[in-house]
Amino acid sequence: MFVTLEGPEGSGKTSQGEALAATLSKRIPLVLTREPGGTEFGERVRDTLLSFGAPPLDPLTQLLLLSAARAQHVREVLRPALADQRNVLCIRYSDSSRAYQGGGDGLPEASVEAAIAIATDGLEPDLTILLDLDPIEGLRRRASAGTEGAQEGWNRFDARELAFHERVRTAYLQLARKWPERVVTVNAARPFDIVRAEILEIVLSRLAVDTTGGTP
Amino acid sequence: MFVTLEGPEGSGKTSQGEALAATLSKRIPLVLTREPGGTEFGERVRDTLLSFGAPPLDPLTQLLLLSAARAQHVREVLRPALADQRNVLCIRYSDSSRAYQGGGDGLPEASVEAAIAIATDGLEPDLTILLDLDPIEGLRRRASAGTEGAQEGWNRFDARELAFHERVRTAYLQLARKWPERVVTVNAARPFDIVRAEILEIVLSRLAVDTTGGTP
Repeated sequence: MFVTLEGPEGSGKTSQGEALAATLSKRIPLVLTREPGGTEFGERVRDTLLSFGAPPLDPLTQLLLLSAARAQHVREVLRPALADQRNVLCIRYSDSSRAYQGGGDGLPEASVEAAIAIATDGLEPDLTILLDLDPIEGLRRRASAGTEGAQEGWNRFDARELAFHERVRTAYLQLARKWPERVVTVNAARPFDIVRAEILEIVLSRLAVDTTGGTP
Repeated sequence: MFVTLEGPEGSGKTSQGEALAATLSKRIPLVLTREPGGTEFGERVRDTLLSFGAPPLDPLTQLLLLSAARAQHVREVLRPALADQRNVLCIRYSDSSRAYQGGGDGLPEASVEAAIAIATDGLEPDLTILLDLDPIEGLRRRASAGTEGAQEGWNRFDARELAFHERVRTAYLQLARKWPERVVTVNAARPFDIVRAEILEIVLSRLAVDTTGGTP
């Protein structure tokens, strides 16, 4: 099963992803990975995005650069892991391009979807957990996280105006309405352990369906 | 007018491009630029491509990464120069993706064209000079050029098999047949000054048409 974890700044993707992976990996073979890192090339892309933060690269450049990291990630990590019967938990994937470059930056949906199609070659998640959070709360959390937040690599978006983050959130919620079977929204404003338990329950129930209810 | 200079390794794109620019810039406002350099970001992309040369990045990753450099180049250099009534001479552009990632690496034409469409937003050259050369001669020239050749940034392709370069040449020649009005093939196996004079004549005659024969 291919699961992605999505959500805005400060919604807890990294900490929840690590907690979920720690629990799941005791039961099933699991690979925890992330975008735009996840490969040596992806790390380079992340560094490049950060170093061109002011002034930022053109949104189309960002879309294509992140898509390049995704293409490499799909071929180097995701496809081999899935072919090897391992499960994959990936922090950020195509929905981040839809929410940030599409919703946030306002790039045409056709360009975003074309870039995703080239990069993923049709590899879509079976399940996406969307950690939903009010942008003001997310930015507050990120600011108080200090240097640890800086390590996540997407914190250059913190400096953008709140309106951008509102558009990102709106786009994420639209994706959840568009693909209700795939995208499950979780309220990330609640205490960590509550959110953690809910994510685990969603993934385990989906895994059970996946292993008992599907066609062979 | 937007002119591009294309061709395989060792065909003389850089030296001919510089010679042409030196002559033309005495008559008309001209910007000489190149891909994947041409912007600070493009230089970073070139460095990245070189540093991941062994093993090379996935062809799709290369396509998207070079497209990211192109998107930035179009918006930061090409569009502003053309909007400012300057002429642009660009060494390598979309046809390089068609020839190398399409013809050489065998990526689907749909993916290559989709990436070009996203990156260029419809900006096509008015004229493309294709410096045609037998790959064996091109590789021989490049090898004898030593460290100077290494500065061009595309020399990592030198190590690939001759068959790759044959496919690149075939793809280039197909582009010239597909768009005979735009792509003019020049035999680059002849002495430098002969080739130089022919390129200058082609560009000047096109410029004359452009300034006297076109609709306003």
